[in-house]
Amino acid sequence: MAVTVGVDLGGTNIVCALVDDTGRMLQRAQRPTGMPRRAEMIAEDIVRCIRDVSAQQAPESIGIGTPGCVDPVTGVVGYANNLDFYDTPLGAMVGRAFDAPVYVANDADAAALGEFYAGAGQGCRTMVAVTLGTGVGTGLILEGKLYNGAHWAAGELGHTVIVMDGEPCNCGRKGCWEAYAAAPALVRQTQRAMQAHPESALWTVAPTLEQVTGKTVFEGVEKGDETAQAALDLYVKALAVGLGNLVNSFDPELICLGGGVSGAGDALMQPLRRAMAGQVYTRPGQPTARIVLAQLGNDAGVIGAAMLGRQRG
Amino acid sequence: MAVTVGVDLGGTNIVCALVDDTGRMLQRAQRPTGMPRRAEMIAEDIVRCIRDVSAQQAPESIGIGTPGCVDPVTGVVGYANNLDFYDTPLGAMVGRAFDAPVYVANDADAAALGEFYAGAGQGCRTMVAVTLGTGVGTGLILEGKLYNGAHWAAGELGHTVIVMDGEPCNCGRKGCWEAYAAAPALVRQTQRAMQAHPESALWTVAPTLEQVTGKTVFEGVEKGDETAQAALDLYVKALAVGLGNLVNSFDPELICLGGGVSGAGDALMQPLRRAMAGQVYTRPGQPTARIVLAQLGNDAGVIGAAMLGRQRG
Repeated sequence: MAVTVGVDLGGTNIVCALVDDTGRMLQRAQRPTGMPRRAEMIAEDIVRCIRDVSAQQAPESIGIGTPGCVDPVTGVVGYANNLDFYDTPLGAMVGRAFDAPVYVANDADAAALGEFYAGAGQGCRTMVAVTLGTGVGTGLILEGKLYNGAHWAAGELGHTVIVMDGEPCNCGRKGCWEAYAAAPALVRQTQRAMQAHPESALWTVAPTLEQVTGKTVFEGVEKGDETAQAALDLYVKALAVGLGNLVNSFDPELICLGGGVSGAGDALMQPLRRAMAGQVYTRPGQPTARIVLAQLGNDAGVIGAAMLGRQRG
Repeated sequence: MAVTVGVDLGGTNIVCALVDDTGRMLQRAQRPTGMPRRAEMIAEDIVRCIRDVSAQQAPESIGIGTPGCVDPVTGVVGYANNLDFYDTPLGAMVGRAFDAPVYVANDADAAALGEFYAGAGQGCRTMVAVTLGTGVGTGLILEGKLYNGAHWAAGELGHTVIVMDGEPCNCGRKGCWEAYAAAPALVRQTQRAMQAHPESALWTVAPTLEQVTGKTVFEGVEKGDETAQAALDLYVKALAVGLGNLVNSFDPELICLGGGVSGAGDALMQPLRRAMAGQVYTRPGQPTARIVLAQLGNDAGVIGAAMLGRQRG
């Protein structure tokens, strides 16, 4: 049976796995990324990790998911802030230690690929993976292939404006989807609702504003608190507007929601499905994108990285 | 030399052309669409038009661009309001009269293909054609292929929200890009500016609000009128926000602007290029989409339709 190796390179850990062609993990290894460190040192530890998991079976290919903007043809990471990578030829640095081809992709794209081949997207041709975490990330798989755009900068839907002149975004624009739909936006909206409503039961969930997390609002809703419901409705509305834009742009078969906020499960999905009504440009009865939860959690990245060879091979 | 036939089916006219493989029109014919009429009658006139232009040379393929939502595999038009088409098998209806294969596509997609092969997009791989007319239409060509999505509903970027809870749009959503960037939006913004500024020179360009067109504001700017400049700036800002969203989503090599409003030329493009600064999520110095004017005007549709065989063949 053919096996491949995936590497999920993060700011904290290097996670590596030997994966079969159905996406099942056979071996797993992990080392600290150990920042701040030179790229050469990180690459050496990636090589060690790969050797750890592939001692028994030689992989057909190796895939690496990394933060930052990646040229998938050359394997060069243009820029990755949290790893101090700048035009770093990661593919070549790791590749010289192995006979197998090494493919490099953005980590959000790798995670999308994991869900596509081995998670929520199995059987799909066109899927968008949306990650609701510190930011809003989107990985595009169009007609079976990762889509990266002409300058490897496609799929930054977190940085599309849904409220012209709205909340400031880290990217410098105002009113980006990310500024309304990422976890920090949910925290901010919960805090604002609490400040406006001293009587809210949210204050029993989080006694101080500093204790508010992305889960607070869901606990408030569970207690039947109206302020929490209103705050969640606001968040879900903006999430739905952005997802509607995504559907009207890409018309995918499936949208798969991952990241911290998606951990709320049905408490998020039920109001979201209601809020999606009217957001999609279609005639009545026409099929449109299904919206589902991601299935692989944190493993999506390392499994998807192992699948990169299937895309490029 | 191989020749193909293109048909641009509109609510008013059937335009048909024999086109060589560089996109040059060799023969041209036109008949009134003659609405209201049954689809069978329209198809018969399309057949006559095709015979008119191909009497000398048999075409290798025939392509038809039509309004509405088209399944390019079956050639069935799901729905086209202004032609009374509803699940109309247009490809089969025309195809039975010819030996050559008949391909059907949405007219905006056909126009995008015309610019791609024979106009502003020559030499590109990934291009988005944006039409600023009665609505805002977008035709997507990704990595050399028309992209239609999983349910032939992709590329409705005119119906992506840029102002949550903003101006009502014909589609039922609020704050769509189309509600700010189509020609009627420019007219509306010009009218509002005139109402707020009775001293504006716009009143000399258009003595009554009913006389305002999409050109009025540009004539006012030419006269140095501040009210006109402010109205144009508002329009251009919303146009730039939507184009920035498009770039951050699709990262095309080229965006090609057509439709009535684009007829303003430099008077539109210069403020637009300034307004695009800061709208694109990229690191400094990284190449990004060029924004240019369409080159083929009304011929883009019929030329692009003739090129459909190149996509599907």
